[in-house]
Amino acid sequence: MKIGIYGYGNLGRGVEAALRQNPDMEIVGVFTRRDPATVKTVTGIPVYSASLVQDFTAEIDVMIICGGSASDLPEMTPMLAEYFNVIDSFDTHARIPEHFANVEKAAMTTGHTALISAGWDPGLFSLARLYMNTVLPEGKDYTFWGRGVSQGHSDAIRRIPGVKDARQYTVPVPSALASVRNGENPDLSTRQKHTRECYVVAEEGADKALIEKQIKEMPNYFADYDTTVTFITAEEMKRDHAELPHGGQVIRSGATGEGGKHKHVMEFSLKLDSNPEFTASVLVACARAIGRMNTRGIYGCKTLFDIAPADLSPLTPEEMRKKLL
Amino acid sequence: MKIGIYGYGNLGRGVEAALRQNPDMEIVGVFTRRDPATVKTVTGIPVYSASLVQDFTAEIDVMIICGGSASDLPEMTPMLAEYFNVIDSFDTHARIPEHFANVEKAAMTTGHTALISAGWDPGLFSLARLYMNTVLPEGKDYTFWGRGVSQGHSDAIRRIPGVKDARQYTVPVPSALASVRNGENPDLSTRQKHTRECYVVAEEGADKALIEKQIKEMPNYFADYDTTVTFITAEEMKRDHAELPHGGQVIRSGATGEGGKHKHVMEFSLKLDSNPEFTASVLVACARAIGRMNTRGIYGCKTLFDIAPADLSPLTPEEMRKKLL
Repeated sequence: MKIGIYGYGNLGRGVEAALRQNPDMEIVGVFTRRDPATVKTVTGIPVYSASLVQDFTAEIDVMIICGGSASDLPEMTPMLAEYFNVIDSFDTHARIPEHFANVEKAAMTTGHTALISAGWDPGLFSLARLYMNTVLPEGKDYTFWGRGVSQGHSDAIRRIPGVKDARQYTVPVPSALASVRNGENPDLSTRQKHTRECYVVAEEGADKALIEKQIKEMPNYFADYDTTVTFITAEEMKRDHAELPHGGQVIRSGATGEGGKHKHVMEFSLKLDSNPEFTASVLVACARAIGRMNTRGIYGCKTLFDIAPADLSPLTPEEMRKKLL
Repeated sequence: MKIGIYGYGNLGRGVEAALRQNPDMEIVGVFTRRDPATVKTVTGIPVYSASLVQDFTAEIDVMIICGGSASDLPEMTPMLAEYFNVIDSFDTHARIPEHFANVEKAAMTTGHTALISAGWDPGLFSLARLYMNTVLPEGKDYTFWGRGVSQGHSDAIRRIPGVKDARQYTVPVPSALASVRNGENPDLSTRQKHTRECYVVAEEGADKALIEKQIKEMPNYFADYDTTVTFITAEEMKRDHAELPHGGQVIRSGATGEGGKHKHVMEFSLKLDSNPEFTASVLVACARAIGRMNTRGIYGCKTLFDIAPADLSPLTPEEMRKKLL
């Protein structure tokens, strides 16, 4: 299966790395909106201008789109679905119906297959919620995120005057997590579920007390959380906060039997050293499924809910039943 | 969707309870090889003789077969797949290829859809292994079971002369579990992964030291494990060990990126008060998918690997994307 990578940031580099772990797939090249001469890939794969992408329709089975959800993907995915089978990691929850409809239209018109919102949340966490809800119809779901870097919250801090750099970690509250795992079905406020740890490099002479106040009172991002702010040096930022770890838990606690007397707790958890590389690994497995589905004449926009798990795997059905069942 | 229950032990009663949590499904009745007059269902649903099951082909969309893997299911599932869409929880791993082939033949011949080996292991744990292996191709899998009652091991103890009753708990070794969760990828022997706790009611005057020795030295079942044997009274057995809890963990620890420098740990875990009721809940969700697939003209023998997750859920695609994605 021949794969193209559209966009070459952290996620695109992650896809490049993940494809090397999947010998049934081959990279055709990276497509960038920058000047291709300025982009050097980690493994030396070719770089092409995004403006030439339509010349590659015959050479690429699935295009993995590595753009941001805010402004890139709503444009890119429907546009590229006219020419390719595509995968994206669109994660702006409120806009999924609109994005789905746009991609569905483009893919159906041209006989392509598209998968949106792949990754881990949305993605594997969504799958966990679906399986858990179907198995335990009477119960309660919880999703915790972290400990991990939230890029959106880090960016929000960086926009405050006097801030040179910032890194924000989302951290689940241990007692809340313990109570959920214990099947106590607590009602948890936003503040009771997660805390936010901020590491900030201030510009010289900046009013640190004011920066801290502005962070802690920022609506939507921090005001509803217990937030800690720690000022560090640029050297400390580089040394201690260069990675993008993340993770989290989906937990469903439910009951079965007469009067719901038997309690059950299901949990899916991830502990990731690199959020973009793991997300990229999910996208690559999805590319295999989407390529196969297109070959079988299944067109249009899909999510992971529509993908039979076997289609994600390089193993034959017999191997899967033998090794994994 | 109209459901039949074939066999009425712990699992059959679990299916009866689970169907009450799924308002889109309706129970037609229980089929038993015993005298129907002697079987009283928990919720008063009708009981029929198994010998009359062929009279119900027009009334039942999916038959959930609640028999044992050792001798019931290898006969029952292919036989019933000639007349019905069927689900079973066949869990004798070595015999899955043979069982799959027999069920496939019966179902294909008559245009039915069958799902074998549903439940949690095989079942949800198999799914976890498949998703984890496709996302992290370079890594290592671990499955831990327990703390939970193993019926097979309990039965093995009961066959020892002088034993009146017995209950065996499989227990993961906490330090092994911690090491795996920590991404250390340990090589673990059978003994290092699980311990076995046995609670035994001895007959009056029985040689307890001999019973303990016979348990601990029993090949396959106990000899390769650190096993503890505790003698208790029949009253204590009834009071403290009447339930059938179980659970466990599937963990995959893998690496991505240049030189595998980023480690990732994925875990799916279950903590179940009632093994049969939870297994039954999985079977009921699978019945929904199998009924739907048959309506779409998809015939033959399937496993959970072949089922698109959306087919398990009572929600519409739009609801799923809105609530769970």
